[in-house]
Amino acid sequence: MIQVAVMGYGTIGSGVVEVLETNKDKITEKTGKEIAVKYILDLREFPGDPHEAQIVHDFEIIEKDEDVEIVVEAMGGVNPAYKFAKACLLAGKHVVTSNKALVAAHGTELLAIAREKNLNFLFEASVGGGIPLLRPLTQSLAGEKIEEISGILNGTTNYILTKMAREGQTFEEALKKAQELGYAERNPEADVEGYDTCRKITILTSLATGKEVNYEDVPTEGITKITDTDFKYAAKLGTSIKLFGTSRMEGNKASVYVCPMMIGPDHPLFAVNDVYNAVMVRGNTLGTVMFYGSGAGKLPTASAVVSDIVEIAGHMEDNIPTGWTNEKQPVAPMGEVTFSYFLRLAGKSADKLADVRAAFGEAETIELPEMDEFAVITGEMTEARFRKLAAAFEEDIRQTIRYTK
Amino acid sequence: MIQVAVMGYGTIGSGVVEVLETNKDKITEKTGKEIAVKYILDLREFPGDPHEAQIVHDFEIIEKDEDVEIVVEAMGGVNPAYKFAKACLLAGKHVVTSNKALVAAHGTELLAIAREKNLNFLFEASVGGGIPLLRPLTQSLAGEKIEEISGILNGTTNYILTKMAREGQTFEEALKKAQELGYAERNPEADVEGYDTCRKITILTSLATGKEVNYEDVPTEGITKITDTDFKYAAKLGTSIKLFGTSRMEGNKASVYVCPMMIGPDHPLFAVNDVYNAVMVRGNTLGTVMFYGSGAGKLPTASAVVSDIVEIAGHMEDNIPTGWTNEKQPVAPMGEVTFSYFLRLAGKSADKLADVRAAFGEAETIELPEMDEFAVITGEMTEARFRKLAAAFEEDIRQTIRYTK
Repeated sequence: MIQVAVMGYGTIGSGVVEVLETNKDKITEKTGKEIAVKYILDLREFPGDPHEAQIVHDFEIIEKDEDVEIVVEAMGGVNPAYKFAKACLLAGKHVVTSNKALVAAHGTELLAIAREKNLNFLFEASVGGGIPLLRPLTQSLAGEKIEEISGILNGTTNYILTKMAREGQTFEEALKKAQELGYAERNPEADVEGYDTCRKITILTSLATGKEVNYEDVPTEGITKITDTDFKYAAKLGTSIKLFGTSRMEGNKASVYVCPMMIGPDHPLFAVNDVYNAVMVRGNTLGTVMFYGSGAGKLPTASAVVSDIVEIAGHMEDNIPTGWTNEKQPVAPMGEVTFSYFLRLAGKSADKLADVRAAFGEAETIELPEMDEFAVITGEMTEARFRKLAAAFEEDIRQTIRYTK
Repeated sequence: MIQVAVMGYGTIGSGVVEVLETNKDKITEKTGKEIAVKYILDLREFPGDPHEAQIVHDFEIIEKDEDVEIVVEAMGGVNPAYKFAKACLLAGKHVVTSNKALVAAHGTELLAIAREKNLNFLFEASVGGGIPLLRPLTQSLAGEKIEEISGILNGTTNYILTKMAREGQTFEEALKKAQELGYAERNPEADVEGYDTCRKITILTSLATGKEVNYEDVPTEGITKITDTDFKYAAKLGTSIKLFGTSRMEGNKASVYVCPMMIGPDHPLFAVNDVYNAVMVRGNTLGTVMFYGSGAGKLPTASAVVSDIVEIAGHMEDNIPTGWTNEKQPVAPMGEVTFSYFLRLAGKSADKLADVRAAFGEAETIELPEMDEFAVITGEMTEARFRKLAAAFEEDIRQTIRYTK
């Protein structure tokens, strides 16, 4: 029997307890061992809860109980999750977490402790919820040179953008609807400003390069400036606007960024709508593969946590290599990254197109009826060059969205 | 150093040699060992080939060389692939194959030998080409009760159906185009009759249930009866017609089948076009996830073979459990499986709809201009019940395609 402690009895924590129960037979069959929840750490009381007897309020009970071999951290936030996770590893316990903030901020250190002590620190649920993603990336694609990872990694913003695209809503209207449905927090900053996506693409990049990426170095732009007008052009163009977390890797260089992207219908992420998440991975010999599923939700996320527990059950005495080392992975400045650009400019194209083309080269033009503006899609150029060229049109430019087919 | 032999120097075999070379540094970094190709078995000579020196014509050289620890079977077909793969395992060598025919026919036995001898028999490339699929299924979803696997598992037929949908081609025209492009064989039977898909869904089902499925028990229907007229209705309905390999599991029961399916726009496999493959997996707590990518192609498939070699490099002394045992998994008769049906009937709906509704219940009706026929979509019923009801309309029914939203 393997005894587990679950820290945090909120959505994910209670989901983990539920999945361990629901799939008990399958798990026992697969691991050859019974997985039992000995403690549930939470500051709150849960009178009448079927697991009331396991609730404890004092972390030290878990830390000091040598029978507890795996600890699930499902508290969220960096503190005290970091302190507790580290203490558990130092006490010789494997740790599983669904907490992207913890992994992005302290993954390197916690993985190093796990390696040194022949333990495991796993976090499949921290990116893409239930989608099997980190394990395929570190194991199935282990021999592959990963050239690009692009993901729709945040369900809240994807829901908002889908609403805007389908129903012509403004950002504010779609956000309000998302809040009503419980998809967005009352303070939606972490989602809509791209911070959540930033943590997730940071984790994916660290796993792909094997080096620590500092999430504070990742240029991050959210979706708050995307408007219903942008989607009118998108509809006419047959394109879609999505919040991307992207990492492009070449040799030892990595460009990592979070921003809204306009994408064409042939892009593998084009049809990923509502609260769904998806990640495409391009490898040098593999070509492009895509993983799709519920990026959040109680049971899917808990299912991913349980998959880590099952994995550890087969490796109680050895460290499963993730390849994420203590080395630092510098992030290329945004100015060096290449994009095409969707631009909306004030005025009539008849008056201004010659100037625009003189600056940006042959650009595709899009006009909507009865608008005092027009849009163009430029060819590819570095962001630095684009900014320089765009400076001359500063007063005319109403919107800039990076574009890829 | 780990010495490898590659059997078969055709598309996949030469791809494996190429990927091992191209990604040598990454593979060495990941495994901590150099992977070297010692022999390439092929009946042909390859004068001037950079690997000419490694070419051998006699299997016994590989079988008897104790330095060869991993053998890649990339010959295709069941014989002599089966004989050679078995001999390699019995000689204490790990075996990796991309050969779905071999795995579907002899996987149970070869896995049992590998288990018994503490070796590995891996076959990630046998289903879905480069898409990481089998490892996520057996490892990431190990604790999950898999309820359904549905896949577009054959690139050739998906290309043909995409051509028919987009360009209004007949089956024969689209097949000819696929043959011209090298996507379809001169004898396309294995693809268009669904046999290839049948092998693949059999393998997926055996991994999901842990029991041997006999591919000869799987009801298999290809795409040769799908017509351009069917796609006219599909266009009007906003649906798509795809060749599905499906396995629905409930308790100890498994319904496994291969057939064309009409699917709605919300189905996760709706937008999978051209030669791409994709597999959706529904788990009891996970919800639905989907894996997408190139289902074939030299380098993507070779990349999956190499991922198995890399996996084995970390398990040279132990058997990685796949969960596929010697037990038999009975396949439910097709008559017990539930579907909705898209039916095309001769005549005018005004004359016949009352009879159709009396038989099948409230059915959605679709009419195209200037046709001497109409179509209906029925509610859900077992196939046995459908056949019984449809018998009364035998002379009128021009087409039957199973339907799911």
